[in-house]
Amino acid sequence: MAVYTDVPDDELAAFVAEYDLGAVTAFKGIAEGVENSNFLLRTERGSYILTLYEKRVRAGDLPFFLGLMEHLAARGFACPTPVKGRDGLALRQLCGRPAAIVTFLEGLWPRRILAVHCAGVGEGMARLHQAGEGFAIRRPNDLSVGGWPRLLAASAERAHEVRPGLAEELATELAWLERHWPQDLPAGVIHADLFPDNVFFRDLELTGVIDFYFACNDAFAYDIAICLNAWCFEADGSFNVTKARLLLTRYEAVRPLSAAEYAALPVLARGSALRFLLTRLYDWLNQPPGAFVKPKDPLEYLSKLRFHQGVRDVGAYGLG
Amino acid sequence: MAVYTDVPDDELAAFVAEYDLGAVTAFKGIAEGVENSNFLLRTERGSYILTLYEKRVRAGDLPFFLGLMEHLAARGFACPTPVKGRDGLALRQLCGRPAAIVTFLEGLWPRRILAVHCAGVGEGMARLHQAGEGFAIRRPNDLSVGGWPRLLAASAERAHEVRPGLAEELATELAWLERHWPQDLPAGVIHADLFPDNVFFRDLELTGVIDFYFACNDAFAYDIAICLNAWCFEADGSFNVTKARLLLTRYEAVRPLSAAEYAALPVLARGSALRFLLTRLYDWLNQPPGAFVKPKDPLEYLSKLRFHQGVRDVGAYGLG
Repeated sequence: MAVYTDVPDDELAAFVAEYDLGAVTAFKGIAEGVENSNFLLRTERGSYILTLYEKRVRAGDLPFFLGLMEHLAARGFACPTPVKGRDGLALRQLCGRPAAIVTFLEGLWPRRILAVHCAGVGEGMARLHQAGEGFAIRRPNDLSVGGWPRLLAASAERAHEVRPGLAEELATELAWLERHWPQDLPAGVIHADLFPDNVFFRDLELTGVIDFYFACNDAFAYDIAICLNAWCFEADGSFNVTKARLLLTRYEAVRPLSAAEYAALPVLARGSALRFLLTRLYDWLNQPPGAFVKPKDPLEYLSKLRFHQGVRDVGAYGLG
Repeated sequence: MAVYTDVPDDELAAFVAEYDLGAVTAFKGIAEGVENSNFLLRTERGSYILTLYEKRVRAGDLPFFLGLMEHLAARGFACPTPVKGRDGLALRQLCGRPAAIVTFLEGLWPRRILAVHCAGVGEGMARLHQAGEGFAIRRPNDLSVGGWPRLLAASAERAHEVRPGLAEELATELAWLERHWPQDLPAGVIHADLFPDNVFFRDLELTGVIDFYFACNDAFAYDIAICLNAWCFEADGSFNVTKARLLLTRYEAVRPLSAAEYAALPVLARGSALRFLLTRLYDWLNQPPGAFVKPKDPLEYLSKLRFHQGVRDVGAYGLG
């Protein structure tokens, strides 16, 4: 839910004039996306999304993100494609911020997750992992195990405001994860934020994936673990094994998983739960005054973390 | 900036199935409009706006608002037109709220007001006033002089938090306005909220007007007074006489103003300034925790009020 920067008429007109898109016919702020300012941009040529990258996105990462979308789209994966100006560039400046226009992707993100959506995201994620092959730029995952000590330290002092003993519980978990974090799993480009609001469907068929602004190089199975957390828990906190089985089996029908990847899933799921818990905790404790964005409940991910702590093998995810 | 209510997939599908619009192809929350939840709705037939009316809109007023848009559009005035379902109804329920689909209006609201925009809004407002003739439903203006004592009372106790002595200054002004408020001016349907973000332009030509949710029956000249405040002050608080003259002369080219209307403009402008000051003051003092909407500065309208207090006749507005 976000428009952090509005765009004056003349600056918009000058910006769009750099492209072969004709004149602007409509321009509306979109109440989606937490990190950046997004606008529906209609021109004489069609519908597009204009994004102004706000300060939480590192400008140095933008060539990775935009290049990745272009790479994926060229390989037939449905995602927004950066539109290039007449100078051949997709990335330029608007209102003092990096900005880009991407194509408009049809479809709706599912507000209520059905099992069939989990099947779709499983297959789509596997296709994304395949389509990312050969992408030349690399970007390490700075929100993986190596980045968590810093994240935890940033919130530890006030974590008790959210729940007594939380900092200690997370420190114990982090220490365990550091000892057990899997190495040498098959890796490549992962989305790393494949939550329901980033996956579009139409008539229960996946039409594409958006928001690649956490994408990075990491273990493919870590992306799967993120999705187990994001797609397979019910609102009451229960884990839906049917959804998990569909997600995993449809993934595997496209890209088979190794025994090592299967074995690592419970640890990766714990790590993924900790990662979102830590960023939500930070955002919860550091709400800017007058924020437009309602922070998400960090404790939702404490409950998910505890579920995976009790998992012995992938049988708990509906397999084997 | 507002999506207060999100819409589950199945409820959206069931709602849209009541219309001859085909299937939904895209659905995005719009970060505009303060009072209601607005969505861009794309279907196989085209683009629309879906609005869920939140609690600040009285359900009993909706037939007036929707009927007015339909009446204006039928008379050639460019505004969103309510789309009727197969049952002939434009207003129904969604997520427990009254909801309606209206047509998508092309154009952009001007972020930086040029004189030519003031000309456009002057002419457009006059056409709106003419097009409203013959509309059968009536709705009194509950935010005019009769409603201000209640509004002031709701904020008076804490007004000093915004500015020392503010409640006393506003009470004095209100008493003066109650004694001098003009009667028997030409009246009809007015928009009553014709701010720049409700007026769309393309290539400096007005393409239409949106957001009729404060429309009511009142003096036409009161609508003009609202626009003098909303369109003719610069960011530094100075009054731009060129803009005012253009707004008034282009209005008058469509619908001539009587001598009584001219004479009343300064007092109407004071009243309009007080009205927006009072609602902004209330919103400023009563921000809900976690609000998505940044409240507007009430003191901007104190400065406008004081300007009009110094106005002796419409010469100050660039006329005569």
